[in-house]
Amino acid sequence: MVRVGILGYGNLGRGVEAAVAKAPDMELAAVYTRRSPEKIKLRTANVPVKPAAALEAGEDIDVLVICGGSATDLPEMTPKYAKLYSVVDSFDTHARIPEHFANVDGAAKAGGHAAMISCGWDPGMFSIARLYAEAILPGCATYTFWGRGVSQGHSDAIRRIEGVLDARQYTIPVPSALERVRAGENPELTTRQKHTRECFVAAAEGADKARIEAEIVNMPNYFADYDTTVHFITMEEMKRDHSGLPHGGSVISAGTTGQDGSSHVIEYSLKLDSNPEFTGSVLTAFARAIAKRAQKGISGAFTVFDIAPAELVSLSGDELRAHFL
Amino acid sequence: MVRVGILGYGNLGRGVEAAVAKAPDMELAAVYTRRSPEKIKLRTANVPVKPAAALEAGEDIDVLVICGGSATDLPEMTPKYAKLYSVVDSFDTHARIPEHFANVDGAAKAGGHAAMISCGWDPGMFSIARLYAEAILPGCATYTFWGRGVSQGHSDAIRRIEGVLDARQYTIPVPSALERVRAGENPELTTRQKHTRECFVAAAEGADKARIEAEIVNMPNYFADYDTTVHFITMEEMKRDHSGLPHGGSVISAGTTGQDGSSHVIEYSLKLDSNPEFTGSVLTAFARAIAKRAQKGISGAFTVFDIAPAELVSLSGDELRAHFL
Repeated sequence: MVRVGILGYGNLGRGVEAAVAKAPDMELAAVYTRRSPEKIKLRTANVPVKPAAALEAGEDIDVLVICGGSATDLPEMTPKYAKLYSVVDSFDTHARIPEHFANVDGAAKAGGHAAMISCGWDPGMFSIARLYAEAILPGCATYTFWGRGVSQGHSDAIRRIEGVLDARQYTIPVPSALERVRAGENPELTTRQKHTRECFVAAAEGADKARIEAEIVNMPNYFADYDTTVHFITMEEMKRDHSGLPHGGSVISAGTTGQDGSSHVIEYSLKLDSNPEFTGSVLTAFARAIAKRAQKGISGAFTVFDIAPAELVSLSGDELRAHFL
Repeated sequence: MVRVGILGYGNLGRGVEAAVAKAPDMELAAVYTRRSPEKIKLRTANVPVKPAAALEAGEDIDVLVICGGSATDLPEMTPKYAKLYSVVDSFDTHARIPEHFANVDGAAKAGGHAAMISCGWDPGMFSIARLYAEAILPGCATYTFWGRGVSQGHSDAIRRIEGVLDARQYTIPVPSALERVRAGENPELTTRQKHTRECFVAAAEGADKARIEAEIVNMPNYFADYDTTVHFITMEEMKRDHSGLPHGGSVISAGTTGQDGSSHVIEYSLKLDSNPEFTGSVLTAFARAIAKRAQKGISGAFTVFDIAPAELVSLSGDELRAHFL
């Protein structure tokens, strides 16, 4: 059995917990938290919740899944714990991946552990889809569409506006853009032409809704480059209609082969009821692969590109060839 | 440069030739044929065509892509040549894969070479899609749909009927079945409910079309279990409208996570203008991986499950993490 530790018990940590519970070859050893352990109630029976500081002492786990934020948590936590354990994270700040990889690689090698960074669905499964397409159709045009789904970063940005009680932001691919890409047209698309943003906002009584709406649609980086729609709803409606965290999207690649330029379109798409549970399931599959590598004495940092599909499952080569090939 | 040999210069061999021509790190060393070499004109300049027998002598190639049929060619050829070279084949008789794998594995290990079997899009990329889905959503329901596209086996079966000059058979997924599977309904579907078959037949003058149609729709294994439509057309129409070999399909997996059974749908789909050129492109990417493994002294048989995405391309880890993750 692969003994899994989870650091951080938010939505993603609970997603990993649920995936580990379904894995016949893995067990949850402990959850580690920076909050007060006694305030946390796990869904899995008979598993201890410990303070994060317990990890310094050398816990009996095979792999630690670090469920922290990419902005400040993971750049510090993943290298720190990669010295002590084999680890998996979901670092998703694309521009800072090379730096994060180098830091984690150094720490993992120093500690003799295996580490997986930037795991999930994007970066993660979508990255794999982009790379397979490039391998088969070199130079192909690859488009990534996200949604329809809740962007937690954009929802948080709206919540920081004065007078906003709660907010949910849905990222939505533009149907005509999707259609042109699927048809292999390889269109040039601006940010605005690819996605729209739809916001549901519960405002405080007496708040200036016109000002809130203007602040949202003009917010640089988050909304200014998009066509954004704002709907004001009640807290009751928010709770009733927008409590889930659905997401998804598509990676679509179009390229040509041969003398006559035969055209090919490859699409990998996800439609997810629960973004954190799906992401947790991806992290868990790669945690299995990392635990296997660590057991073989392989150390250093890896990404989803470095792991063969067979490493992700507990099935033997014979079983895979007989049932999945 | 990876020196590639191609054995067999039919549609698939030409597809591999086209893909190798696009690969910056690979070159076509020679084409080998069981036909008369002087009758074959390659599309690549200054590459020799040699009799297949030349392979016995030890040719200067890094990997041999074997473009033969699965029924009789590959079970014999792949083990034979795996003793002498690193090889790639597209063996696609699903039921006989375990036996073929064992034969090729033994031969490759005896010769100290690396071998890839059952490469292409199904088995191949579709197999990868099935396995990734199972790794993320253990126990998920996975459906494979083929088409709309030309099935060469079914077209050949029609051509063997008396009075048929030429035939083209299109395999078509049933739209309502696709829809239900995409909606995550996990329906039970019979063979007939998943695909229909559409046949275009050019008959000899005076041939009994009613008999031909009856022989097609009642043919066991090929057509009897499907709703089949037969259209009689002229040889001119056949040439004008049905000379391509388009294909494609979808692997759709639906599974749940968590306590509340959140539902997730993963789809990998292909829309291909030229089945043999796309398949040749997949074989070429995996030939690169096999050549790299051979160079590292790794021997034995592998499938697409054993190869990490990064092995398929000539880009460095740094480049991959910066541009594809």
